[in-house]
Amino acid sequence: MKAEILTLLREKDGYVSGQELCNRFGVSRTAVWKAINQLKESGYEIEAVPNKGYHLVGQQDILNKNEIESRMNTTWAGRELYYFDSTGSTNLDVKRLLEEGAKEGVLAVAGEQTQGRGRRGRSWQSPPDTNIYMTLGLRPDFQPDLAPMVTLIDAMAVAEAVEETCGLKTQIKWPNDVVIGGKKICGILTEMSAETGYIHYVVIGTGINVNITKFPDEIKETATSLCIEKGESVLRAPIVAKTMEHFERYYERFIQTKDLSLLMEDYNRRLVNKDARVKVLDPKGEFEGTARGIDKKGQLLVQRQDGSMEEVYAGEVSVRGVYGYV
Amino acid sequence: MKAEILTLLREKDGYVSGQELCNRFGVSRTAVWKAINQLKESGYEIEAVPNKGYHLVGQQDILNKNEIESRMNTTWAGRELYYFDSTGSTNLDVKRLLEEGAKEGVLAVAGEQTQGRGRRGRSWQSPPDTNIYMTLGLRPDFQPDLAPMVTLIDAMAVAEAVEETCGLKTQIKWPNDVVIGGKKICGILTEMSAETGYIHYVVIGTGINVNITKFPDEIKETATSLCIEKGESVLRAPIVAKTMEHFERYYERFIQTKDLSLLMEDYNRRLVNKDARVKVLDPKGEFEGTARGIDKKGQLLVQRQDGSMEEVYAGEVSVRGVYGYV
Repeated sequence: MKAEILTLLREKDGYVSGQELCNRFGVSRTAVWKAINQLKESGYEIEAVPNKGYHLVGQQDILNKNEIESRMNTTWAGRELYYFDSTGSTNLDVKRLLEEGAKEGVLAVAGEQTQGRGRRGRSWQSPPDTNIYMTLGLRPDFQPDLAPMVTLIDAMAVAEAVEETCGLKTQIKWPNDVVIGGKKICGILTEMSAETGYIHYVVIGTGINVNITKFPDEIKETATSLCIEKGESVLRAPIVAKTMEHFERYYERFIQTKDLSLLMEDYNRRLVNKDARVKVLDPKGEFEGTARGIDKKGQLLVQRQDGSMEEVYAGEVSVRGVYGYV
Repeated sequence: MKAEILTLLREKDGYVSGQELCNRFGVSRTAVWKAINQLKESGYEIEAVPNKGYHLVGQQDILNKNEIESRMNTTWAGRELYYFDSTGSTNLDVKRLLEEGAKEGVLAVAGEQTQGRGRRGRSWQSPPDTNIYMTLGLRPDFQPDLAPMVTLIDAMAVAEAVEETCGLKTQIKWPNDVVIGGKKICGILTEMSAETGYIHYVVIGTGINVNITKFPDEIKETATSLCIEKGESVLRAPIVAKTMEHFERYYERFIQTKDLSLLMEDYNRRLVNKDARVKVLDPKGEFEGTARGIDKKGQLLVQRQDGSMEEVYAGEVSVRGVYGYV
């Protein structure tokens, strides 16, 4: 009920009467009053204006289960939602939830991670109440070798959600870094549990630099946050909800063909290196060329000087711009 | 020390004196006497013959940590060994051990599994003290899409170990069923935890029908056991140890090239369908042809009537003989 009250308070041009809420939910005045009070306790400033009703004052960057649910507009992605003020790692949480039987689309969001991890066991700084740390769980019905594609889909969803909610122009650095002005705002760690020919589950962990303003020395040249880029603090909950919305939409398109053929145009439009010179750092040998975009398998097509096209497979190699970081 | 005493009792033409054991391990007569007594308590029949020494009588099918270690002849596979009289599932045990930091080669063996599982969540009957239930843990340094190949390698290791210890002719039904006379004696469940481009770990669970003599109705036409085929009860520990030995050898060859090019000849020699008519049950369309063997990626090459060669990828399809079960 509280999530719905929040949705109504935002929709209804500012005011919702107590009676309206009673009728809507079929509960007593006291129950409404109690719910409003609980919302106030969790940080919302709600005024009761005589003859007009309840009114939500200002916009605080509140992240909790009610706040996220009040903005969620999906069919399945993020519909089973767990919020933790602090947790070890949302990837671990969702793995556990899936092992205990959670459905496709289960989402864990945390205010803080005490053991946040990046790729290959690197740690991922997760300070409290500033950024987004969330993990989506899937139970895909496709072959394990397709799993890396969901990381690209998630990057597209984050890029789209940030652009829509913050009005900042986002790009993607292949395969899955979301960047603004060439600097990284998002890290994605996709993990899978599988047997031969069969995926048990996939978890997609997404960390977005939202209101953080100081970075450790080793990443401060290459990382940024939405707050820094926008010049003001940003609400996290709408980004969570919009990311789920776009993920759901993109993922359903992906499932139709089990490849990226319906998505690669959207992806390539955002590709930061599109038609730019790149250096491919392949353990089997470096080479330079011009990035032309991804193919339907998510491989980066890099054209060599002689015109021939190389397919670059993520995971084995990294690609960087010949000019500048990206 | 107890594992080594067992090894010595088997090697030394039948007799080992107490003094020899004292010298060997640098312990007192009392310590040796205690160790011998503990071995007797775990089921070994050990005689003390005056002027000759200790003597191991008969061969009991005993499975425990000492027994397996006394027969283990590997560098890393199975060297970190856990034995459980009864456990839920050895795959779950080894996943947990790897998550807690166990090294490549960690092996769990159980006398009984209470929640044994086969592929795609099917249950795997694991009655006590008759069969082999074991799981090997690896931390591979190759791309996740290569992981299915270790299942083929394990099938080869089991086939070789059974042939060597029992003198029974084994074959492999692609991709990884070990069969005797066309009937299955072994199931393998390989599971992986991975992120994009990077494997956290792989566990290979192997169930071998050793001394079981009755099967449930639904598999009694297609399954057999070593005891049934040999006409007498079979020792389990030597099969465990020999499987590790052959796995280690094959796996090291695999690692050299990161494909099956050095193993496919051995594999194809055992392939039950080699040069026989098969029906390929591909969801995209069935077809018949002649199985020619695997390629270096582990795909089955099936030649169509018109001479063209199809590569059949495990996981998506199954293959069965046109004549008979296999």
